[in-house]
Amino acid sequence: MTETGMLERLPGTSVDLQELAAQLSEGALSTDPGVIEAHSKDEALFCPAEGATALVRARSVADVQETLRFAHAHRIPVVPQGARTGISGGANAVPGSILLNVSSMDRILEVNQAERTVRVEPGVINQDLKNHVAQFGLSYPPDPGSVAISSIGGNIATNAGGLCCVKYGVTKDYVRSMTVVLADGTLAHLGTDTAKGVAGLDLRGLFIGSEGTLGVLVEATLRLIPALGEPLTAIAIFADERSGLATVADYMAAGATPRMLEFVDGKTLAMLNAFGGFGLDENAGSMLLMQADPVPGQAEAIMSVFTEAAERNGAIDVAYSDDPADSEALVAARRMAQPAYEKYAQEHGGGQLLDDVCLPRTAMAEFYDRVAQLRDESGLMITVIAHAGDGNTHPSVFFDTADPQETAKAERAFAKIMEIGLELGGTITGEHGVGYLKRDWLAKELDEGTKQLHRAIKSAVDPQGILNPEKMLAAV
Amino acid sequence: MTETGMLERLPGTSVDLQELAAQLSEGALSTDPGVIEAHSKDEALFCPAEGATALVRARSVADVQETLRFAHAHRIPVVPQGARTGISGGANAVPGSILLNVSSMDRILEVNQAERTVRVEPGVINQDLKNHVAQFGLSYPPDPGSVAISSIGGNIATNAGGLCCVKYGVTKDYVRSMTVVLADGTLAHLGTDTAKGVAGLDLRGLFIGSEGTLGVLVEATLRLIPALGEPLTAIAIFADERSGLATVADYMAAGATPRMLEFVDGKTLAMLNAFGGFGLDENAGSMLLMQADPVPGQAEAIMSVFTEAAERNGAIDVAYSDDPADSEALVAARRMAQPAYEKYAQEHGGGQLLDDVCLPRTAMAEFYDRVAQLRDESGLMITVIAHAGDGNTHPSVFFDTADPQETAKAERAFAKIMEIGLELGGTITGEHGVGYLKRDWLAKELDEGTKQLHRAIKSAVDPQGILNPEKMLAAV
Repeated sequence: MTETGMLERLPGTSVDLQELAAQLSEGALSTDPGVIEAHSKDEALFCPAEGATALVRARSVADVQETLRFAHAHRIPVVPQGARTGISGGANAVPGSILLNVSSMDRILEVNQAERTVRVEPGVINQDLKNHVAQFGLSYPPDPGSVAISSIGGNIATNAGGLCCVKYGVTKDYVRSMTVVLADGTLAHLGTDTAKGVAGLDLRGLFIGSEGTLGVLVEATLRLIPALGEPLTAIAIFADERSGLATVADYMAAGATPRMLEFVDGKTLAMLNAFGGFGLDENAGSMLLMQADPVPGQAEAIMSVFTEAAERNGAIDVAYSDDPADSEALVAARRMAQPAYEKYAQEHGGGQLLDDVCLPRTAMAEFYDRVAQLRDESGLMITVIAHAGDGNTHPSVFFDTADPQETAKAERAFAKIMEIGLELGGTITGEHGVGYLKRDWLAKELDEGTKQLHRAIKSAVDPQGILNPEKMLAAV
Repeated sequence: MTETGMLERLPGTSVDLQELAAQLSEGALSTDPGVIEAHSKDEALFCPAEGATALVRARSVADVQETLRFAHAHRIPVVPQGARTGISGGANAVPGSILLNVSSMDRILEVNQAERTVRVEPGVINQDLKNHVAQFGLSYPPDPGSVAISSIGGNIATNAGGLCCVKYGVTKDYVRSMTVVLADGTLAHLGTDTAKGVAGLDLRGLFIGSEGTLGVLVEATLRLIPALGEPLTAIAIFADERSGLATVADYMAAGATPRMLEFVDGKTLAMLNAFGGFGLDENAGSMLLMQADPVPGQAEAIMSVFTEAAERNGAIDVAYSDDPADSEALVAARRMAQPAYEKYAQEHGGGQLLDDVCLPRTAMAEFYDRVAQLRDESGLMITVIAHAGDGNTHPSVFFDTADPQETAKAERAFAKIMEIGLELGGTITGEHGVGYLKRDWLAKELDEGTKQLHRAIKSAVDPQGILNPEKMLAAV
C-alpha cells in the first residue's frame, strides 16, 4: 500500500487529518502507510483489515476525546485498539477508519489496599498488573491465555476469561468502574468506585464486552482479592475423551469448587509430546488437570473428591501434588497447548482456526462426540481443549493455507462447530468475543427481541455508527 | 377513592380495559378501587402512589406480553411490581398507570445440579428459593434484609444485596440469563445459560438493577454455589463508633475475607436492648459482628486476624464461637435492628427514613462523625448500622410524623446524609435502589456524559416512556 494509493481512495482526507494532528499530543497521529498497515490487524484469520487512513497513538484522555470529536464531526469510522492480541478481528481496520490505539496509556495509577482496588489505564498488560499488585499481597484473577501480551482495555472490551474462571469469574467480575469516551468525545464515568452501588443503570456492565462499539475505555478501577495460596494440583488420565468430560460434570455436581479444571484431548496430548517432550501418555484419550485452593490439613480430603469422580468415570491414572514445583510442572504442559498447535500447524500448511464454544457442562461429552464425527467426516485435524469446569471448549481446526479447498473446508468446519454448540444449548463465544469473525453467527444466536435491543442501544449510544463498525453488531 | 372518581379522571378507559381483560387469564385484571389502592404502594415514605387505573395480576408470560402490547398501543404507563417490599417507591402507582404485578408467577421451574443453576419465575420469595435449593446441597447467597418477604424479580430489579455481599457478592453476580418482556410486548432472552458467554452486548447486566424502567422480568436462570458450612462468628465491642469503623478498614486491608462484617452503632445497641433485652453493653459505642467460612483446624488462626485488628483499634471486648447455636445467638441481635427501629419509631411519632449510602471502607469513620454532627445539629435521633465490609451504611432518621416541621427536618437530614456520602466518594444507594425517593439525587450523582447515556438508552429501549415513568430515570 502506498501513500498515493491511500490518498486516491479518500481524497481530501489529508487536510482534515492535519487539523486533528494539531489537537493531539506531538507525533500522536501517523498517516505513514507502513505504520498504519503494521497496526491494522489483530491475530484473527479470515478477517478484512484494509483501508485505515490514520493511526492515533493516544497518550492521554484528551487525545482520545479529540480523536472522537473529530471523527464524530466528520463521520469517520474509529477502530479502538490496544495490544491487538485478539483472535476475532475486533481490532482490525475498516475502510476509511482512524485506528485509535491506547497501548501507550499504560500507567498503573493507584493501588488502594483497604479498598482492594487498583486504578489503571487501558494499555497495562495483564501480567504486569498481576505482578504489580502481588507486591501488595493482592491478586487480579482474570488470566486469559494471552495474559503476558494482552492489555486490560482489551480484556475489558471482550470480557476476557481464562483458566481461573471456574472459581474466580471473568473480567466483568473485577471491574468496579470505568471512564469511557463516548462517540462524540464526551467523557463518562460508569459504575461506582465503592464495593456496592445501584445508582442508575449498570452502564459499566453494558460497556464491558462491548468490543469498542459503544465507547473507548480510558481508565478503570478494578477489584482485587487477597493473593491466592499455592494450589493443590491433580491430573487424571482417561482412555477416551468422553470419560474425561463426564468426570467434569460429575465432579462439579458433587459440589466441588476447583480454581482450575482443564480438559486436554488425546490429539492435543500427542502434539504436546511432539512439541515439548512432556512424556505424556501417548495412548491416553484425554487428561484432566485440576487445581484447588489449599486448605491446611485438607489436601487428602479435597483430592479424594476428585479422585473418586475420576475413578467412577474410568480414569486410568490419577496423581496429585501440593508441592509448588510439581504443580507447576503438571500445569506446564497445558500452558504449552497453543505453542504446540502452532508447531503442528507450521508443519501442516500453517492454518489453525481456534474456536470458543461454551456449553452446559453436561453437554460437553456429546459436543466432543459430534466434533470427533466432524473430524472423521471432514478429514481435517480437529483438536479440543477446554476450560472444562465452565464448559468453555476451544476446538482447533487445522488446514493448509495454500490449499483453497481445504481452507474452505476448514472454515465450514469452524462454523459447524458453532452450530453444534448452539444446538446443544451453548454460545458461539465464551471469552474470545465476536469481532468480525463471528458477526454473522451472533445474528444466529440471538433471538429477535434481543437483536432489536442491540440495534436500538447501538444507535442510541453511537448514532452515527462510527465506533468499530462492521464488527460485532454489524449483522444483528 | 371511588370507581366514579377514577372514571372521571380517565374517561373512556374502561372500554379499553375490557379489551385487555379479554386477552388475559380469567380474572387477571381488576379495576376495583380498593384492590388497586391496596397494590399502589411499596414500603417507601414520602413517595406519591396515586392514580392507577387497573391492576393486572399476571399468571403467565402471555399475560405480561398482552398487558404491555395493550399499554404500548395506548401509551399507558405500566408499573411492574412484585412483593412491593422496596423502600424507594419503585413499585408505587403513577397517574393513569396499569399496575403489572407478577407475584403470582412464583414457580421454581428447575434445579440443575451439574450446572448449579435454578430457573425461576419472578414471584419466588428469596427465602423460599434458598430453602428449595438447600435440599440439593446448594446455596443462593444474596440475602437482603427483606429475604423472607421480597421476591427474586424485585431483587433483580434493584440488584439487591444484603449481609453476604462482602464475600459472596450481590444479585447481579448470580443471574446467568433472564427472559424479559420489552415495552412493546416483545420477548427477549438476555445473557447465556452457560457459565461464560460474551456473544453480544451484556444486556443481562444492563437490565439488572433497572427498576422496571427497561422491561419486565418473567424468568431468570440463577447461578448457585455449594451450600456454605456453619460459620465462625465473632463480635467485637468498642468504646466509640470510630474505632469500630477503623477496625473494618484495617481488617480488610490485612487480607481478610469474612463472609459477613456488620457494624452496629451505640444508639442502635440501646434500641436493641429496649426491643429484645439482648443484654448488650449499654456503654458500648459500637459493635462489629463478623462471620467467616469454617476451615477445619483454622478457627484460631482466622479469629486471631480479626481479634488483632480489633485490639489494635482499641476494642473493649472480643468474643467468638464456632458453635452454630452460639453463632446464631450472636447474629440474632443484628437481625433485629429493623424491628427495634420500628419499636423506637412507634414510641417516638412513627417516622423512620432508612438511608443506604455506600462509601469507600476507609471513609466510613469520617462519614460517621459527620452523621453524628448532623444528629447533634438537627436534634433528631439518627442511628447507623452498616454492611461495613462493603462500606454500605444504613443510617436511619427518626421523626414525629404528626409534626410537619420535624418531618421536613428529617427529610433534609436524609438528603444531607446522601450529600455527605457523595462528598466522601460514595454513592446515594448501595442496594435499595433509586425509585421515586432518590430520583433527584441520582441526577446529582451522575456526570453529564453518564446522564446523556441514561437518557439515550431509556428512549431507545422504551421509546414511549411507558415503563415505570417518574421513577429512577425521571430526573437524569
